[in-house]
Amino acid sequence: MKNISILGSTGSIGTQTLEVINELDNFKIVGLSANKNIDLLEKQALKYKPKIVAVYDESRARILRERLNIYNIKVVSGMDGLIEVATEKEADIVLTSVVGMIGLLPTLEAIKSGKIIALANKETLVTAGEIVMRKAKENNVDIIPVDSEHSAIFQSLKSGKKEEVAKIILTASGGPFRGKKLKDLEKVSVSDALKHPNWSMGRKISIDSATLMNKGLEVIEAKWLFDVDIENIEVIIHPQSIIHSMVEFIDGSVIAQLGVPDMKVPIQYALTYPKRKYSNIKKLRLTDIKELTFEEPDLNTFPCLKLAFEALKQGGTMPSVLNAANEVAVKLFLDKKIKFLDIPKLIEETMLKHKTIYNPNLDDIIESDKWARESIVSKYDR
Amino acid sequence: MKNISILGSTGSIGTQTLEVINELDNFKIVGLSANKNIDLLEKQALKYKPKIVAVYDESRARILRERLNIYNIKVVSGMDGLIEVATEKEADIVLTSVVGMIGLLPTLEAIKSGKIIALANKETLVTAGEIVMRKAKENNVDIIPVDSEHSAIFQSLKSGKKEEVAKIILTASGGPFRGKKLKDLEKVSVSDALKHPNWSMGRKISIDSATLMNKGLEVIEAKWLFDVDIENIEVIIHPQSIIHSMVEFIDGSVIAQLGVPDMKVPIQYALTYPKRKYSNIKKLRLTDIKELTFEEPDLNTFPCLKLAFEALKQGGTMPSVLNAANEVAVKLFLDKKIKFLDIPKLIEETMLKHKTIYNPNLDDIIESDKWARESIVSKYDR
Repeated sequence: MKNISILGSTGSIGTQTLEVINELDNFKIVGLSANKNIDLLEKQALKYKPKIVAVYDESRARILRERLNIYNIKVVSGMDGLIEVATEKEADIVLTSVVGMIGLLPTLEAIKSGKIIALANKETLVTAGEIVMRKAKENNVDIIPVDSEHSAIFQSLKSGKKEEVAKIILTASGGPFRGKKLKDLEKVSVSDALKHPNWSMGRKISIDSATLMNKGLEVIEAKWLFDVDIENIEVIIHPQSIIHSMVEFIDGSVIAQLGVPDMKVPIQYALTYPKRKYSNIKKLRLTDIKELTFEEPDLNTFPCLKLAFEALKQGGTMPSVLNAANEVAVKLFLDKKIKFLDIPKLIEETMLKHKTIYNPNLDDIIESDKWARESIVSKYDR
Repeated sequence: MKNISILGSTGSIGTQTLEVINELDNFKIVGLSANKNIDLLEKQALKYKPKIVAVYDESRARILRERLNIYNIKVVSGMDGLIEVATEKEADIVLTSVVGMIGLLPTLEAIKSGKIIALANKETLVTAGEIVMRKAKENNVDIIPVDSEHSAIFQSLKSGKKEEVAKIILTASGGPFRGKKLKDLEKVSVSDALKHPNWSMGRKISIDSATLMNKGLEVIEAKWLFDVDIENIEVIIHPQSIIHSMVEFIDGSVIAQLGVPDMKVPIQYALTYPKRKYSNIKKLRLTDIKELTFEEPDLNTFPCLKLAFEALKQGGTMPSVLNAANEVAVKLFLDKKIKFLDIPKLIEETMLKHKTIYNPNLDDIIESDKWARESIVSKYDR
C-alpha cells in the first residue's frame, strides 16, 4: 500500500490523479488540498477519507471545516496547511500539482520529510531548481516528473547512463498559434489562446502553451531535473504531441517515449515508479495517426521561449523573475487587461529591470519573485 | 580490453564492424572468417593480426594459408574452421554475421564456450530459436542483437521490466516496392529489387527486404530473443526507417529507439553493451527529416510476411523450412532463374509439402533445412 498526499487535488492534474488512483490497487489518499474550490474538495474528502485536507483560502477553510466536522477529517489552511498536507506522517508520495510559485515551500518541506515527490508543479524547479535538487539529494529523495515531457525523458534515460547522455530533446506541440506570425497574434482573444490542440489542461498552462513559455519553463526544469547543460537541451515543434520527448545518447541512439496525449500515463508512471502497471487508457496506434511532423520553433513569433533560455543562461534569481513576471502577465491577459503579445514584452521589461542575485538562497528567490510581481502589478493595478 | 571474433568479416556487417572497432579503444580482433573472399580477408588479417582466420571454402583456405604463412596467423577451413574461430579461447565476444543457416552451429558452439554473442545472423534464431536461447540461458550467455530492429527493442526494453511488456512493434521500411500491387511486381528485375531505399545491406537481405521476408524472419527472431507471444508482435511500415522499432508497455507508454539508418549504431551498441560509447556517425535531426509516416503492411502484395507468421504459429521445424526455402528461392531469383513473385510461391509450396516435426532437436532442424533446399533445387537445378 502506498499513501499519497495531493497538493492541488481539485485542479486538472489533481483530478486526473484521483482518476488514476481509482483504477489502481494499493494506493490510499491521506491528504488533499485546494486553493479555494471547497465544493469539489469536500466531495473528494468524503470519497477518499484522507486524514487531512488543506484549503489555501482561510475563510473557505473555515466553511469546509464545519462541513467535514463530523467525519474526523482535519481541515487546515494557508501555507502552513499546505505544508501540513505535504508532510503528513503517513504519506509516502506527495504529488504536487498546485499551480505557480506557491508549490515551492510545501515541496521543499515534503523533501525534508523524506517523501517521494511526484512533481507536477514546474515553478518549484524553475525558481529554485538548484536548491530543490540539492535538498532531494541530501534527503535521498526521488523526484519523479509528472509533466509528460519530463516523464518521457525520465523513462528514456533508463536506456543508458547519465554520462552517456548527449542531448535532451523536448517536444512542443507549438500550441494553438503554431505557424502564425507576429501580426496574426496582435488581436487574439483569451478563448483562442485557451484552445490547445492536443492536451486538456488548466488555464494558466494553456496560455503558457500558446506563448511557448510552457516549453521555456520545461527547459529550465529539465536542466535541474536531469542535470544537463543548457546547450544540450533542444526544443523541437512536433504538432501531434505523440513523441513526448527524447534523449540522444553519445552513440547516436535516440530513445523516445510515445503515446496518445493523456496525462494519466505520466501521472500513473510517477505513482507506480519504478514499476509499470496496466492502464486502460487508449493505446497508441501509429498507423491510425499516419504521420508525425517536426519543425524548428519560431523564436521570433514566440519570444517567450527565447526569454526562458536567456533567464536560464543568466541564472541566479533570473528564472524566478521570468516565472513571476509570466504568471502575472498571463493573469493580466486572462483578465483581459493586456493583449497576448504584451505577455513577452512585460516579461522582458521586468527581466531587464532585475538585478540578478547569483547563488540565491530561498529568501532571495522569494524576494525576487515578489519584486517581479509588484513591479508589473504597480504598472497595471491602479 | 575486449577480444572479438567476427564470423563473416568480409560481408556488409563484418566490414562495418571493423570500421566501428577502428574508432573504439580497447577492442582487439582475435578471429576473422569469410566464405570465399580471401583477398579482403587477407587484408583484414594483415591489418588486425588475429590469432586465427577461417575460410569456409577449403581450396581458398589453402591459398590464404600460404599467403599468411609467414605472419603466424593460423588459417582454418570449413565448418570446423568456423567453429574454431567462434570458440577461440581469447575471444570475449563473437559477432556472427555470416549469411544463412551456416551460422547456426558456430553460434551454438560459441555459446557453449561462454562467449557473449553479438548476433547478426538471423537464421540462427529463426531456425533454432528455442534451442539457442535455452543454451544461452544454461551457459549464462548474453545474446545481443545487431539487427537495427532488435537492437532498438533491446534498448527500449531497458525502460521497463519483462512482465510489463504489452507488445513489440517492429518497423519495416516497406522496401523498394512499397505501395506497389501484385501486377506491378510481375516483371521486376534483380537490380530493381536490390535498390533498398534506406539501408546499405548485402544482396540476400536486400531481396528479403523487397519481399518483406526480412521482416518475417525478424518477427520469428523477436519471438525467441524477447520471449514474447506471436500475437504481441506487430509489424508496421515506416518508410523513413528512423524509428527502428518500439516496445509498448502495459501502462500505454511506448518506448522507441530512433536514429539515422546506419548499422554502425546497433553494431557498436552490441560491442560496448552495457555501456554506450561516443560515435562520430551522423546524428539524427528530426527537423531536417520533417516527417515520419506509418502504414499497415500489405500482406496481399507481400505474402512472405504472412508466411513467416504462419510458420511461427505452426512452430517446430516449419520456420527452418520457411527460411531454407526462402534462401534457395532468393538465390534462384538473384540467378535470374525465377521471377520475383515466384519467391513466396516456392516458399508456400515447400511449406505445404513439409511434415512439421514438433520440439525438434538440432538434427531435425538441419534435416528439415536440407529437405526444403533439395525439394526446391530438384525442381529447378537440372
